[in-house]
This record gives sequence, structure tokens and C-alpha cells, in this order.
Amino acid sequence: MSRLVQNAAGRLVPVEINGAPAVPFAGVRRHQPSGRRAGPLLRSCSDYPADGDKTVESLKQALLNAGLRDGMTISTHHHLRNGDRVANLVFAAAAELGARDLRWFPSASFPCHDGMIAHMESGVIHHIEGSLNGPLGDYCTEGRMRGTAVLRSHGGRWQAIQDGEVRIDIAVIAAPTADPFGNATGDRGPAACGLLGFALADSQFADHVIVVTDNLVPFPCIPWQIQGNHVDQVVVIDSIGDPAKIVSGSTQITKSPDRLLIAELTARFCDEAGIIRDGFSFQAGAGGTALSFGIFLRDIMRERRIKARFVRGGSNQYLVSMLEEGLTDYILDGQTFDLEGVRSMRENPGHVNTSPFTSYNWHGKGNFASMLDCVVLGATEVDLGFNGNVVTHSDGRLLHGIGGWQNCLASNCTILPIPSFRDRIPVIVDRVTTLCGPGELIDVIVTERGIAINPLRRDLVEALRGSSLPIRPLAEIKAEVEDLCGGPPAKPRLTDRVVAAIKWVDGTVIDSVFQLEK
Amino acid sequence: MSRLVQNAAGRLVPVEINGAPAVPFAGVRRHQPSGRRAGPLLRSCSDYPADGDKTVESLKQALLNAGLRDGMTISTHHHLRNGDRVANLVFAAAAELGARDLRWFPSASFPCHDGMIAHMESGVIHHIEGSLNGPLGDYCTEGRMRGTAVLRSHGGRWQAIQDGEVRIDIAVIAAPTADPFGNATGDRGPAACGLLGFALADSQFADHVIVVTDNLVPFPCIPWQIQGNHVDQVVVIDSIGDPAKIVSGSTQITKSPDRLLIAELTARFCDEAGIIRDGFSFQAGAGGTALSFGIFLRDIMRERRIKARFVRGGSNQYLVSMLEEGLTDYILDGQTFDLEGVRSMRENPGHVNTSPFTSYNWHGKGNFASMLDCVVLGATEVDLGFNGNVVTHSDGRLLHGIGGWQNCLASNCTILPIPSFRDRIPVIVDRVTTLCGPGELIDVIVTERGIAINPLRRDLVEALRGSSLPIRPLAEIKAEVEDLCGGPPAKPRLTDRVVAAIKWVDGTVIDSVFQLEK
Repeated sequence: MSRLVQNAAGRLVPVEINGAPAVPFAGVRRHQPSGRRAGPLLRSCSDYPADGDKTVESLKQALLNAGLRDGMTISTHHHLRNGDRVANLVFAAAAELGARDLRWFPSASFPCHDGMIAHMESGVIHHIEGSLNGPLGDYCTEGRMRGTAVLRSHGGRWQAIQDGEVRIDIAVIAAPTADPFGNATGDRGPAACGLLGFALADSQFADHVIVVTDNLVPFPCIPWQIQGNHVDQVVVIDSIGDPAKIVSGSTQITKSPDRLLIAELTARFCDEAGIIRDGFSFQAGAGGTALSFGIFLRDIMRERRIKARFVRGGSNQYLVSMLEEGLTDYILDGQTFDLEGVRSMRENPGHVNTSPFTSYNWHGKGNFASMLDCVVLGATEVDLGFNGNVVTHSDGRLLHGIGGWQNCLASNCTILPIPSFRDRIPVIVDRVTTLCGPGELIDVIVTERGIAINPLRRDLVEALRGSSLPIRPLAEIKAEVEDLCGGPPAKPRLTDRVVAAIKWVDGTVIDSVFQLEK
Repeated sequence: MSRLVQNAAGRLVPVEINGAPAVPFAGVRRHQPSGRRAGPLLRSCSDYPADGDKTVESLKQALLNAGLRDGMTISTHHHLRNGDRVANLVFAAAAELGARDLRWFPSASFPCHDGMIAHMESGVIHHIEGSLNGPLGDYCTEGRMRGTAVLRSHGGRWQAIQDGEVRIDIAVIAAPTADPFGNATGDRGPAACGLLGFALADSQFADHVIVVTDNLVPFPCIPWQIQGNHVDQVVVIDSIGDPAKIVSGSTQITKSPDRLLIAELTARFCDEAGIIRDGFSFQAGAGGTALSFGIFLRDIMRERRIKARFVRGGSNQYLVSMLEEGLTDYILDGQTFDLEGVRSMRENPGHVNTSPFTSYNWHGKGNFASMLDCVVLGATEVDLGFNGNVVTHSDGRLLHGIGGWQNCLASNCTILPIPSFRDRIPVIVDRVTTLCGPGELIDVIVTERGIAINPLRRDLVEALRGSSLPIRPLAEIKAEVEDLCGGPPAKPRLTDRVVAAIKWVDGTVIDSVFQLEK
């Protein structure tokens, strides 16, 4: 077990993870990378078919051709979300081939991937680096996974790949449409999911790239979101995913009166803070509250004839309607959350694909996230230092991934609209169970009981002076909620064994998740 | 002076070029690269403005910020062709700043860059690696450049950059439209040129990237052919180029009866060889003969209701009309040759941008060039072994670049429609002055005196058996032309000093250009 040190945020973190050295978080904007980006293997056209036909007969054969060996790192992607069939097929084939101790490096995992627990039990998979949903998270928090989980943001995943921190042996890319050369797109086909941006780094950096599709078209597949020039093999299967489950379930507007109130307060806050003006930009997450916020915002924009320069997706029918109504020049989309989003991306040149590279990669020459006027995000917990948690709950269980959450904190105004308690457990705590985002980057917390502005943002405090909105100190809201819920959440009983490391956007370790006591 | 060795093609080549080791050509598909691609420097968003505004006040300031030093490599690009102003401004600024011994690494040079001779005379530029047009070529062939010129194909330039053979210190990208973050496009703006694909590798691999534009738009510049995430600085100037000279002058259909005959014979050859069929693909160069070939082809396709799957540009009004008429599903465009091409690329989703990476890079997992059914190219000389020359004339003078010529030889059927003599000098010779393309890759030579099929292509010989076309042995055509012209071309008087090295698509040296005797 690795030695633990206290990092700049006062959190205990390992200096070694799964046998490789790890750098403790040094503070926001403090860690400086050095050296050069990882270089993928040099290849020669001599070794690829001149006619461009890279199809092979089965996934199993493709894994054999790729030289599958024990201990390799295999990546898959979550564009098909809870409808994905490909990741399961990959590890079923790897198991049949007798592979062991693989590292699964998904861009995210979903409940449909719960079968991976059996592969961990049987030794096929050693550990997972990527978001861990409910059952996989429980498996990890109970200390049953052999290696340490590593959770990264979307941007952090790109950074880890490009920096050479994670070398991918075999990337398997589920593609709703592809040609025999390996050009692939997600915006059409029976399992259309929108874009394939989360697989872009894998396609560029992995030693071996396999595209799996159920909709093969003649060369060229247009558009090519993934370029065949990075692809080694193409496998055609009957179905890569269940279209009914590909779109996110979290795209329903909230009906809860509390959450509607939170959404409305958030929109009014943006308005009074002067954020909603011609040419502005915003990003909102996929949850019901964030969606409702978007609708309140849309109403304000319509009324005042205000046009955004760009909005960032996760796109959905509401953002698409804003684009089509002329309320924004562009949607810069990182992930498509419903079929309207997919249609719009396919049809509208103003609905633009982005990738974690353009949007979130911290080890680049700037990224899009810091240019946003406002971003609206969720959290499982916040504390009096405005620190945020998105991966664990107060009971210590690791139940969620980071997504783009950490990356989005770079925006000009980061707002967390959250209920002040859930299931009678307060959400505002003394110290977040797991630190995912430093408080200095979180500007505003909006609850149904009032709005707390981070005192570091004197400009916002000033702008809202005299507002009719319920601006309150965070400690006051916290006290009120604790009164109501009968005190702060019970402390989880944890061992001193690190079961998961939480990376910051720069690749350093910002916090650890500890094994629950039995 | 480097030692010379005989390479696999029997040509004398240096084993060291400008102080770096060079690998002699080993035969087609023989050289195997090893190791990993070059990695660009790791950067951090901490060092770039959070609001994404990277504009600086002048090109001179930008060069200072980039740390301009003696001996650096500076790249520019030829999208603005003979209308380019930016490369000249860059070296004027470098000269003012007192820089010396720079390596200029253009994607191509044009007559408008003749001022670089003064910079070579004064010591600002040490040598040029890239195509050398008339006066610059003369300067080189006369032995007046201090270093050795290195000529690469478009694909070879990408390969050299990605393999780390050429490390670019500062890339300067002339952008017809850009935003303050550095996203840039060539398809709109007062100096619209179509695409910026030749600068793509530079943007991805150079240590420092400067975008120069005369049309700054608010973020985001859509589309982004160049991604701002690769860009360090943005400079706004009055004019990056002369729009009247940006489009190529070589896009007029030939009026010469001989050349029209050659074009017609080429189209008829394709027809009889069975190349023109539904779903086929072709690429033709920019010269008048190639254009006329395209028009004959179009007529055949119209008549027979044949539709191509894709045609490759250099796009021009004729290809655009084919796309708009439905004679092809796609134009896969590497360079826009006229304003119709620019318009179509901007408006038509079937008119698709490519880059030297997708089309030509030999050290990738396949490329587009080998998938073409047919490609039609020019040459300055061919010899009885079907070897081709495109850079020198029989007098030994280096007057042309390679462009995509070497890369295109990978197609299924490479046809050179060429006049059998020019200015009373035979074009078919015993041994090409400079070997650019090995004869085993050149399938057919079409002249006004007959069509010669490479005997290695027994399938083509067989397909054309009994044809009414004037199929003749190449030696017979050669003898006839020599009779007419009064013998073979006079041998140039050359010294044993190598003034330019010709690279093959895999980075090996296929031939040398020697200094002319005074």
C-alpha cells in the first residue's frame, strides 16, 4: 500500500497508484507539466491494405490480431451510454481468449456494464480507471477491486492520455456508422448517438485501434468524427447498442416544486449579476434542474431579445430549439443527450462537434471551458469552503463519475444549484467527504432556501447588493438545514485503505476514496 | 560535404543532409519506420489567458514572444499561393529583429517569395526546405544557397514533421478568418483560399504557433480548420494576401490541339480499361491537360449515367459542377484551386476538407491515395523504365516542387498524360535527370503520339488488347520523338556537389540534385 501524504488541499493522497508514481495536488494553477506529449507508434502504409479495407470477421479475431496479452489496457467509450453493447462484448471475447489482469479504461461506465464485476472476480479485469456507477462503485468502495480506481474528468482523461500517463494498448470504438477504412461517425445509423469525442484521444494515441460498427458504408464515411488513418481494424457486428437506451434518461425537466424554485433562482441570479447579455455564453448539465434553468433562461432571452454567441452542450431538444429560434449563434456540443440533439448535429452547421481536447484539456494552449460566462452544475455535497464533491455521498460510497464537472469550474461564474438536503441528509457539510473541486473555483450555491455567494467573488457580492433575491451566508443555510434534518450527516466508517484516487484536471491527485469498514 | 552512396534505385545520395543523418531509398514499400511519433511540448492552460484572447499587436512582437533565435526553423504555408503576403512579412520582421541562419520550411514557395533570395544573401535565411520555384530553384541549382535544399511531397512533409525529422520552432499560419483564441478557417474572409490543410501538421507539432489574419471574428470561428488549442498567439494585419492571385493560374482548360488530344486519349484509355464505372474514384492535377481530361471524363459519365463515389481535388469549377450535378457523391479536397471551389467547400457538406495526413502520410495506418481507381498527373521527364521526374528539367535546373505527385503514385492506375516533347526537347529520355517516382508505380504514359502501358501491368496490357487506341511501346515513341527533335536532350554539365535532396514518401532519399557547372 502506498504511503499517503497531505496535499495542498489538506487531503491524504497516495504518492503511488497501481505501481506508478502520483503527484499530489499542488493548488489551482500550480502544477507545471514538463517535457513532451506522448508519441503514438510510427506505422507504415506498407503494413495496411492498399484498398483501405481493414474489416476483419470478428471482435475476437481483431483482439488476437491486436496481440491481446495479460495486463494490457483496453479502452472503450460511453457514447452509447446505458445502451452500450460493445464494452461487454470486448471483455467477453477477452475472457474467452483467456486474457487476465486487464486494465479497463472506459471514458465512463454505466449500469449496463455491471457484468464487469464478474470479470473482476474471475481475474480477467484487474481494475477500472474511469467513472464507477452504482454497483461498480459499491464494489470498489467495499474494497473488492484488486487495483486502485482512478477517476478523472473528461479533460483529465485526455490529459492523462496525451501526457503518456495512461498508455492504451487497444482502443475499441463503438461507431454508429463507419467505412472499411475506419472513418467513423456517431451522427447517423441505427445506433446514432451524436458524437464520438470521448474516443478521439484513444484513436490518436492508442497503440492499436479497433472500430466496431453495425452500419458499414462505402468509403468515405462522411463526416469522419474518427479518422480511419488512426484505425487498425474494423469489425462489423449486428448491433452495437440499444437505441432506446442510448439517449440519456436525465433529460426530463424537473417537476419538483423545490427544484423548479432552485432553477428559477439560478436564472434570476444570472440576470441580476449581468451575465445574460448579447453575445454571452453558458453551459448547463443534463439534470432536471439544469434543464429547467435553461428554460427560464430561454424565456428571459426571448423577452429581452438577447442572443447568446454560443451555448455548450450536452445538447438536448431545448438547446436545439434555441439554436433554431436564433437565440444562439452556435451550440458547441460535447455530448448529445437526446435524439433532437443528434438530428441537429447532423443537419445544422451551427451545431458544432467539440472534443475533450478543445473543451477541457488542461495541458493545452487554453481550452473552451474558461471562456464561458456561466456554467450550471450539480454536486453531491458542498462545504463551508465552497468545496464540491460529485463522486461520493456522505456515507462514503463512490457512486458517480466526474464527467466534465471539474473542467467546467474554470468558467467565469460557476453556479451549483442544489437542494439543501436529499433523503433528509444535508447536502451542505463542514467538509466534503471527497474533494473534487476546490472552493476557490465555485462561485455561487443556489438552494431552495437561499443563494450563497462565495465571499472571494467580491464583484458578484457587489453586483447583487440590494437584490430582492434571498442572498444568504452559506453557514446560515447549513444551520437551518441541520435543524430540519436533525443534525449533520453521520460520518461514514472508513478504513485507511485507498480504493480510488481522484485526479485534478492537471493530473495531480486531489483526494482519495477510502474503503468502507465492513 | 557528405559522402554519397548509391541507393536502391541506383542514384547517388548523401548520407548526411545539413548535419543530420539521412537514409538512402531502399525500394518501394521497403523502409520500415520504428519508434514513436514526435511529441509536441506539453503546455498548461495556466500560461494562456483564461478569456481566450491571444491577440498581440504585431508580428514582430509575436516573434519576440515566441523567443525567436538564430538558427530556428520557421514554417509558412502556400494556401495563398502567389498572392501570399505573410511569409514575406515574417522574414522581413525576423530580419529587423536581427535573426540569422534561419531555416525556412514552407509547404511550398511561389514567385512572390523571390525576396527570400535577399534574405539568403544577407544571412537571415540559411536554407530552404520545401519546393523551389523558378528563381529560388535557379539560385539553388547554381550552388548559391548555404545549406542543402530538401524537397518533399505533401505527404512527405507531414511524415517528416510527425516523425520528428523536422522540428518546427515557429509556425506562422496565414488565416483568411480567425478568432482571438486562434481557431482559423480558409473558407471565408477577404483572402479566402479554401482550406488550410498544409498548415495542420505545423499547428499540431510546432513548438510555437502564430496565426496571422486580416479577418478577426468573435470566438468561435466556425468551422475551425486549425484549432485554437494548438495556437499560441494571434496577430491581426491589414491584408494577408492579394485575393486576385490566391487562386491558381493553372486552372484554364488547354487550347492546344495536341494537349486536347492527350486529354481525350487519357479519358478513352480509362474507359477501355474499365476504370469508369459506378462508384469509382479519380484525381486529376491542376494543369490544363488534366482539366481537359476531367471534362472528357464528365461527358462520358453524363452519357452513361455513371456516378463516382468520390473525386479528389485540387478542386475547381469543373469538379464542383460534377458534385452539384450529382456525378459524384463527394469531393475530397486537399487544395482549392478557384473561387468556385472555395464557395462549394463553404456551402456543400459533400465537399469535404482533407489534409496531407488523411490523404498522403505514408507513416500512418493507410491513406486515401492508394484507394483511388485512377490518378492523372504531369511530369517534366519520363524514362524507358517508366520512372518520372517532376522537379528538374533535362538541363538540370530545379524549377518545380513535388506537391502531392509522389503520394498519388500509390493509386490503382497512375497515368501521366504528357507531351512527347517541349520546346523541341524530348520528354521521354533514357534516364530521368532526377528520379522522383519509381517506374514500378507509373502505369501508363499518354502522349500525342500514342499510349505506352507499363509492361509490369499485365492486367492493363490485357484489358487494352485489340483496342483501337494507339497503344505503343514507350521506346518506339521515344525514337520517333528523337528523330523529330534531332536527338535526345543534351546532358547538363553538373558538379559533384549536392544542392538539393529529393525525399521519397517514407523519408528516405531517392535522388540528389547537383550544382550546375558555371
